[in-house]
Amino acid sequence: MSETDNSPARRSIGATRNPASQEAILAAAEAVLLENGLNGFSIEAVAKRARAGKPTIYRWWPSQAALLLDVYHSRKHINFIFPDTGNVRDDLRSYLSGLLKTWREHTSGAVFRSLVAKAQGEPAALAALSAYMADRRAQSGEIIRMAQARGEVRADADPELMTEILASFAWGRLLTDRLEVSDKDIDAVVDAVLTGIAANPSA
Amino acid sequence: MSETDNSPARRSIGATRNPASQEAILAAAEAVLLENGLNGFSIEAVAKRARAGKPTIYRWWPSQAALLLDVYHSRKHINFIFPDTGNVRDDLRSYLSGLLKTWREHTSGAVFRSLVAKAQGEPAALAALSAYMADRRAQSGEIIRMAQARGEVRADADPELMTEILASFAWGRLLTDRLEVSDKDIDAVVDAVLTGIAANPSA
Repeated sequence: MSETDNSPARRSIGATRNPASQEAILAAAEAVLLENGLNGFSIEAVAKRARAGKPTIYRWWPSQAALLLDVYHSRKHINFIFPDTGNVRDDLRSYLSGLLKTWREHTSGAVFRSLVAKAQGEPAALAALSAYMADRRAQSGEIIRMAQARGEVRADADPELMTEILASFAWGRLLTDRLEVSDKDIDAVVDAVLTGIAANPSA
Repeated sequence: MSETDNSPARRSIGATRNPASQEAILAAAEAVLLENGLNGFSIEAVAKRARAGKPTIYRWWPSQAALLLDVYHSRKHINFIFPDTGNVRDDLRSYLSGLLKTWREHTSGAVFRSLVAKAQGEPAALAALSAYMADRRAQSGEIIRMAQARGEVRADADPELMTEILASFAWGRLLTDRLEVSDKDIDAVVDAVLTGIAANPSA
């Protein structure tokens, strides 16, 4: 790692965000969170593990939440979550099952649970999570917008509100540790949003 | 308060769960949570405020989560949340808007957020929350079961899974501090579940 190249006048190591040390800090943050839990998570422990200075970490990430959000985002399998199969039912199935599967099989579930928990007590964490979620809603809404362009979904449906229904269902499962959802139940949730459960939908 | 009547042989005050002191402890727990936040919440602070002994509180509530769950449950406007209007659309609208409104206008929203946050780091809190939610799903599912009995909803719809979709949406709004939801959006969410958003529902 050569952190000194770009800024000869700076006063301490780490003023420039260096990809290698950034990754070392993200990996350390993930390890500390998974080993110590949220209550035992601290920038001090991350700094020690990554052999970085606390000021360096705080310079790059203004809060614990910002750091955890970066851990989450860098570890998640983004492409799996925003599918484009050309068919809205398959896209939504894939979106919901991908979210559940990613949270179940990777450390990202534990990291995201911690972030949501943190956001309930810390305004900075809530602000970071809210900004992130607004961005995610815009992205996932694209599934519905594409379906509207193909004529599969009614033009008056609110794209972001509709995918929020599915994402919220996954949040509820994550936060109550019930991420094992059968394909039948995933289909039932997706089909409810797409075609409804009313005996006579036109009533 | 006469706490001594029922158990002459007990060794300390409070072995019998007395309604008046129980209420005093619930009120103290609520006040401590709202004033100190979750990070400043402790059984010690509750005991001091309620002028009760810590052992008494622990005898009645095995964990902070159990105590907070009782605060939540005792403060929520239950009847408002499980409506029975005779029409499934009105019932579901009332269920979702009631949940959002209760969390927005009463302290129960802050208490429930704290409970969900606690459940992410404490197995005892998660177990208490999970048991509570299983019970709530059984109750809210009744809205769909009644609608199925009236022939309004298809017999193959899973009642608890369907109301879970709406409750999870409300959770997502609570946990990201976006509880102000327009009637239009409430209707859009309910109507998605009831009649779907597909351009051609029978496709």
